[in-house]
Amino acid sequence: MIYFDNSATTKPLQEVLESFHTVSESYYGNASSVHRLGLEASRILRKAHEQAGLLLNVNPEEIIFTSGGTEGNNLAIKGIAYAYQSRGKHIITSKIEHPSVLVACEFLATQGFEITYLPVDQTGVVKVDDIKAALREDTILVSIMHVNNELGTIQPIKEIGALLSDRRYTFFHVDDVQGFGKVKLELKDNGIDLYTLSGHKIHGLKGTGLLYVKKQVRLAPLFHGGGQQFERRSGTENLPGIVSLVKAMRVVTEYHLHHAEHIQQLNNKLRLELSHFPEVVINTIEDQAPHILNFSIPGFKPEVILHALTERNIFVSTKSACSSKKPDESAVLSAIQLPRAQSTSAIRVSFSYHNNEGEVELFARVLKKILKDLKK
Amino acid sequence: MIYFDNSATTKPLQEVLESFHTVSESYYGNASSVHRLGLEASRILRKAHEQAGLLLNVNPEEIIFTSGGTEGNNLAIKGIAYAYQSRGKHIITSKIEHPSVLVACEFLATQGFEITYLPVDQTGVVKVDDIKAALREDTILVSIMHVNNELGTIQPIKEIGALLSDRRYTFFHVDDVQGFGKVKLELKDNGIDLYTLSGHKIHGLKGTGLLYVKKQVRLAPLFHGGGQQFERRSGTENLPGIVSLVKAMRVVTEYHLHHAEHIQQLNNKLRLELSHFPEVVINTIEDQAPHILNFSIPGFKPEVILHALTERNIFVSTKSACSSKKPDESAVLSAIQLPRAQSTSAIRVSFSYHNNEGEVELFARVLKKILKDLKK
Ligand SMILES: Cc1ncc(COP(=O)(O)O)c(C=O)c1O
Ligand SMILES: Cc1ncc(COP(=O)(O)O)c(C=O)c1O
Repeated sequence: MIYFDNSATTKPLQEVLESFHTVSESYYGNASSVHRLGLEASRILRKAHEQAGLLLNVNPEEIIFTSGGTEGNNLAIKGIAYAYQSRGKHIITSKIEHPSVLVACEFLATQGFEITYLPVDQTGVVKVDDIKAALREDTILVSIMHVNNELGTIQPIKEIGALLSDRRYTFFHVDDVQGFGKVKLELKDNGIDLYTLSGHKIHGLKGTGLLYVKKQVRLAPLFHGGGQQFERRSGTENLPGIVSLVKAMRVVTEYHLHHAEHIQQLNNKLRLELSHFPEVVINTIEDQAPHILNFSIPGFKPEVILHALTERNIFVSTKSACSSKKPDESAVLSAIQLPRAQSTSAIRVSFSYHNNEGEVELFARVLKKILKDLKK
Repeated sequence: MIYFDNSATTKPLQEVLESFHTVSESYYGNASSVHRLGLEASRILRKAHEQAGLLLNVNPEEIIFTSGGTEGNNLAIKGIAYAYQSRGKHIITSKIEHPSVLVACEFLATQGFEITYLPVDQTGVVKVDDIKAALREDTILVSIMHVNNELGTIQPIKEIGALLSDRRYTFFHVDDVQGFGKVKLELKDNGIDLYTLSGHKIHGLKGTGLLYVKKQVRLAPLFHGGGQQFERRSGTENLPGIVSLVKAMRVVTEYHLHHAEHIQQLNNKLRLELSHFPEVVINTIEDQAPHILNFSIPGFKPEVILHALTERNIFVSTKSACSSKKPDESAVLSAIQLPRAQSTSAIRVSFSYHNNEGEVELFARVLKKILKDLKK
């Protein structure tokens, strides 16, 4: 089996599963209970906050553990909107954000907020000048992703952070679900106020994630209740999931530190292989996130190719697993104004550290064979 | 070890952990992916919806899998509030609800909603006539729990459902986090529109839960995004957690079917034992939920007793793990107008099917010894 759909989800690491299991069995106390089982749980919880804080170079109390990327993005956006609506009701985002950002904004638009959806240039990158031009007195939030999930393009987070640095009541949210562990991003130096991660995209477990929220930033919770997690996300903490997330974060961070070039080499190799295919157009410009390569084969239905690959136990995706508003065209690819023949025939390959060059070679060989068969 | 704090959280069952592990390892595909791994995942997901539907005797599409009870309650209450605010902005609930209901309502009060918090009688039960009297033209929601988490009192759900049956736009939400698997409740016959469960209270995993929502009922999602779970809760589904929740639901349902009297016997035994303690006043009236017994020892600080029990590896709670607004008095016990000496000295014992009579005897013996020592 060749799994090249790591931007949709990843296989959980063995050590991640083990830490989940151990905590579930041995530390099942409720972290709010005041007897020993509770105190043990709350000690482990505190440690998880500390370790996540260290890995992101932020304070432990700035970490909110969530159930995933979609919760994180909704909590960030609605949390700011409801907390600061008296200061303003204008939000800036881009057309290539994940649906968990875009649809959350669409909901807020029904609640009296005004949303600016910025275009991107033909390479798939937001222009900082466009943000500058869109900023208003009443702009309370700018939400721009770090790495796009369909193209792998890297957005100018540092520059946007700098642009917003002197605006005290315009907060900056970054969805880094696709970038963490693959493209380094400092939170503190870049003026980021809120930052979303998801466990299952980094070899952690589904149902886990975190949102970083800068200490000074107020946030209206999505979950009100017992006041857990510094009053920002009530509910009995999923301690096994939390510990497993921190484990996954640590493993991918260390891997990235020592083997960052590995994924890039897979990407380079695939680009090279595909350059020999006259039918293929590559949609992702060079020097973007190493793990995503998007290309089109105009004239071929991508589902047919995906199906033929599946039959040979090779898994890629036609477009991101959860952005299927229009049945055949990708919103991201239409935002970069690809011709329709290209935007409706795209295939996304997404690597993980576990893939190797042999798999890339085999993939190219199989794809060649499939195209040859289809042309007959 | 004697674990008598099962209303705070329960130990996950071995088979629950195993199903989580198996799905995490073997079915890690994203249920939205269209290749084989995705299709396998989505088939399992569909099956989980069906099985949960069968267990609750409702339709598969009426199940929304959540991250726990707090999410379920917030989704139910805010979901109705935002979806039906044009019809009315009045909500009725009781003073003894869990904070995830009460604080969600307090938040809505800041957003222009009006909340009626009904009192309870001295036994801790909501009066149906009070609900009748509180109903208004613009009442869109009545939220009443099934089993109270501190006292174990059972609320008159059937009667409330009947009262609301001819009100098309007053929805009925029941928080059954404490009752499921212990006190049977039919959803369909009782006019229930929304119904919350939490995994970790029924020997399932933390980070899992579900909300039943009747098909005809609209709901504004808390998580907008890719449109998963019938557009009601976006985000990549936590398939391992979902499967593990259904497993836990099935096991406790079967256990209840065959051994419902077991927990009741533990409760009876403890009542009998405590009747020999002149210092003890029992706060839970008879014939309530079998697994919870609340009693006070006026004149003794409950933390001191809890601590002494902990030292002997016995775990109970002073009040519910997450309702600590006022530092020493329980909101629920003050709602039933216990004298302060009683409401500030309460201890909650909560059983699970895994407890046995020997543990109850030992608990009573140890408690006697502790009180004797403290009196010295
Ligand atoms: C960029 C981006 N943001 C957010 C999400 C949502 O994360 P999750 O699947 O954990 O809800 C995804 C993945 O689907 C994503 O690719
Ligand atoms: C009655 C009741 N409702 C809701 C909850 C919240 O559930 P969870 O801990 O899964 O968030 C609890 C438990 O804390 C509870 O006892």
